[in-house]
Amino acid sequence: MSLEPVWIAGHWREESSPEGQLQSANPRTGETLEPRFPISGDATLKAALAAGSEAADELRGVEPERIAAFLERCADNLERAVDVLVDTAHRETGLAKEPRLRNVELPRTVGQLRQAALAARERSFCEARIDTKNDIRSLRGPLGGAVAVFGPNNFPFAFNAVMGGDFAAAIAAGNPVIAKAHPGHLSTTRLLAEAAAEAITQTGLPRATVQLIYALPPELGLDLVAHPELGASAFTGSRRAGLALKAAADRVGKPIYLEMSAVNPLFILPGALRERGSAIAKELAGSCTLGTGQFCTKPGLSVLPEGPLADAFSAELKTLLEAAPVGVLFGSRSAAHITEGLVTWTSHGAQLLAGGKPTGEPSFGFQNTLAIVTGAQFLKYPDALQTECFGPVHLLVFASGTEEMLAITNALAGSLTGTIYSDTQNEDEALQRRISSRLRQRVGRLLNDKMPTGVAVSPAMNHGGPFPATGHPGFTSVGMPASITRFTALHCYDQVRADRLPPELRDHNPTGTMWRCVDGHWSQGNVSSKAS
Amino acid sequence: MSLEPVWIAGHWREESSPEGQLQSANPRTGETLEPRFPISGDATLKAALAAGSEAADELRGVEPERIAAFLERCADNLERAVDVLVDTAHRETGLAKEPRLRNVELPRTVGQLRQAALAARERSFCEARIDTKNDIRSLRGPLGGAVAVFGPNNFPFAFNAVMGGDFAAAIAAGNPVIAKAHPGHLSTTRLLAEAAAEAITQTGLPRATVQLIYALPPELGLDLVAHPELGASAFTGSRRAGLALKAAADRVGKPIYLEMSAVNPLFILPGALRERGSAIAKELAGSCTLGTGQFCTKPGLSVLPEGPLADAFSAELKTLLEAAPVGVLFGSRSAAHITEGLVTWTSHGAQLLAGGKPTGEPSFGFQNTLAIVTGAQFLKYPDALQTECFGPVHLLVFASGTEEMLAITNALAGSLTGTIYSDTQNEDEALQRRISSRLRQRVGRLLNDKMPTGVAVSPAMNHGGPFPATGHPGFTSVGMPASITRFTALHCYDQVRADRLPPELRDHNPTGTMWRCVDGHWSQGNVSSKAS
Repeated sequence: MSLEPVWIAGHWREESSPEGQLQSANPRTGETLEPRFPISGDATLKAALAAGSEAADELRGVEPERIAAFLERCADNLERAVDVLVDTAHRETGLAKEPRLRNVELPRTVGQLRQAALAARERSFCEARIDTKNDIRSLRGPLGGAVAVFGPNNFPFAFNAVMGGDFAAAIAAGNPVIAKAHPGHLSTTRLLAEAAAEAITQTGLPRATVQLIYALPPELGLDLVAHPELGASAFTGSRRAGLALKAAADRVGKPIYLEMSAVNPLFILPGALRERGSAIAKELAGSCTLGTGQFCTKPGLSVLPEGPLADAFSAELKTLLEAAPVGVLFGSRSAAHITEGLVTWTSHGAQLLAGGKPTGEPSFGFQNTLAIVTGAQFLKYPDALQTECFGPVHLLVFASGTEEMLAITNALAGSLTGTIYSDTQNEDEALQRRISSRLRQRVGRLLNDKMPTGVAVSPAMNHGGPFPATGHPGFTSVGMPASITRFTALHCYDQVRADRLPPELRDHNPTGTMWRCVDGHWSQGNVSSKAS
Repeated sequence: MSLEPVWIAGHWREESSPEGQLQSANPRTGETLEPRFPISGDATLKAALAAGSEAADELRGVEPERIAAFLERCADNLERAVDVLVDTAHRETGLAKEPRLRNVELPRTVGQLRQAALAARERSFCEARIDTKNDIRSLRGPLGGAVAVFGPNNFPFAFNAVMGGDFAAAIAAGNPVIAKAHPGHLSTTRLLAEAAAEAITQTGLPRATVQLIYALPPELGLDLVAHPELGASAFTGSRRAGLALKAAADRVGKPIYLEMSAVNPLFILPGALRERGSAIAKELAGSCTLGTGQFCTKPGLSVLPEGPLADAFSAELKTLLEAAPVGVLFGSRSAAHITEGLVTWTSHGAQLLAGGKPTGEPSFGFQNTLAIVTGAQFLKYPDALQTECFGPVHLLVFASGTEEMLAITNALAGSLTGTIYSDTQNEDEALQRRISSRLRQRVGRLLNDKMPTGVAVSPAMNHGGPFPATGHPGFTSVGMPASITRFTALHCYDQVRADRLPPELRDHNPTGTMWRCVDGHWSQGNVSSKAS
């Protein structure tokens, strides 16, 4: 049986020397899905890199307006293909068609593409800085090579290597994308690529602005992120794969942005537990089981003060989790990973309160799972007990008192989010202050009284955090313009003749709306001829 | 004889178990200078890290105004110690007292500290973003650990690990500094640390806000940059040391900012050569010999079209370099490094036209040196012929024509700067466009008709560039606020109660001058109560 074609240099073409093949599976039935996709070899990778490099050169000559139009066409094309996209993604991921895929994730993806289009058109993301006195001007320009995007399993649209957030950000900054599909949703990715291909035709962008490879042997993945002609890489996925890619890219000084793992700790302070423990338990059960717990920001552990209220909380959470529908995991190996994680937990003193088992063939189901451990035990094995269980699994840490809660905070590794629930009468305030000042340094996003699983596409969002959640605490993969900034290089022009400057740095504001910092003042205006 | 004390946790204390000792030398006489300084051991490093971590916690509770006052006191204290600083730095580096040390570098250093103070006070560097609709707010906050700063040999004041640019930027962002001195100017660094110590006393900052270690065995340097409690590192120096530190820091996901090396290519286009070759030769001779060629941005090679004009240019440059005073290099090993580099050049086809030899004992002198190679040869061995010779050394690359000039551009590694000289009648324009579009991707700062050795402290400056010039193309070590941004983490607050927000993110603008991006608009005002 023939394999699906890869999309290289503007052509859908047969993988000439496949290193193997792969197929997605239906998590709800366990059924292996047609069609079959190739694992690409070195020749295809080299061809993609060469074409990507050429496209990077060509894109530098393309008007921002056309890049914006491309992103908008991408959004339009997705909206026209909603039914087939939702059906296909549902089949490949087991995620609910409604509301998740149709009403939440696809609109979010379309929205991200349109925001990226606005950013590409409006150009404030360039962070233009003009020093008229010294005649030095700088902006954030494209990287000069393609961006390799590795998509994760858990958002077949919104974080897909084609059409997802990294894709939109890389292209808005003027870089081509070499997409590496996730094996969990190959046909979905293929469909997204077809929509992107149509948008390229519609807008006349360089044909290698987007390319698609379904899979690579691990060593070729390392070659890709370390290739001299590549601009940068973006990876969302497991810590193990992420660290291997990071090491390869770091060795040769290639930027790589990673979103690898997170435990997303939650603190429930005594007053909040007393005041509204039951309501918090309901929120937590919902947040832990959303998307079968396969969110990057799923709260993985809660710290709360031991005692009767904590016991009641735990009992209620157990009841809620046991009563909640059992979801399916994305892949055939997902359950085994969770089981491994649970073994790590329990062999370091945690006890299972609920669930803990795969629901068995044919589906990739897993019971909603709750475990518990004492604060003392957590402090003895903080690393083991922060092993991520990517699924509907939660660990309660019962602290013996305030000082132990603080010690636990100090033992936390870098996470995407950290959340504090405190009472409304400010009885928790003193403790809240001490915990949040420690937690602040360990998470990208600090929340109050709210579960972290919603990640708004906001300019103020940080979907990032200290290592090992990501590779660098200064970058976010969600929220423009910051997510775009990742895919830029700082370009300074020192006494460069006016007619040679990029339009964004000339005296005249090229869009009329672009924010530029002129002699220390942010403005949407032109540089006054007096000043220049 | 006793060793000078290290400065750890607010105390000048004896190195309890030195791993060895070292002394600076006078480059003009070769004389080894007293006093002797210790190479510190593990116990001192651990003490510094523990105190640095504590100081990081304490600094988060310090008013920005006090951090600003500290930086200003640092500047004041330097100004009061000008004579001894200039004498000491002159003795240790051989740099001219005037104008270089007294009239250029020290005022620059003082100016950087005052700019950092302004930034710390005014707080625009925080890049506060407020999304009132979603109640999500973010800013750039301190890293939560100390910043290790490794200073280079070539700027005893302006890039010193104490009082230099990285120091000022790290502290402005609210991080303590663990300074590692350069062995070339140990007493200068000690003096700077004493001025900083006085400023700490004057302003009551945490006593471990600044600490000083003179030297570490290489393996402890690696331990330092990879330590879990460290915030980040900044290194300016050789590629070899930089890459070793980078590998250690990367492995554990610790941010490290490096400025490692650069060839800083220059292109002299045919029209410019015809129009003003002689003037350019004079500028180039001056730029190559400034500070005995030991500038990070020294132009290391020029590409020009072969022919009679190029021959005349080369002859004039040779004459100028031979006539210019012979300077001294910083260290006893500097000449050997240059000689190695020249052997690499000549064994790959370059020919020496002038100089090429150390001027011998007792001083660390080196002849002003000019070499030449054909473009064809350069394209055969681009790596070898881009070996940096850190000193008054320049390589002319004679290209056979336009296409060869472009091919050479494509073969260039990442540099801090790239410069194009073109004629004033725009005859060079077509070629200029093709070269600069390629050069743009390979350098941090693109210049026209101007030597790159001046690095203005401007918000629009980029003293950075693609690997291997630095570790990441998006960061600059000169120019605020961007240089400060390196030492921050992105901190998002999602629905955090108003009275718990940092002042910078509350509705009221805390300084009245801080620029914040509120719902997409940059403003110095308050968030209107309606919007919030």
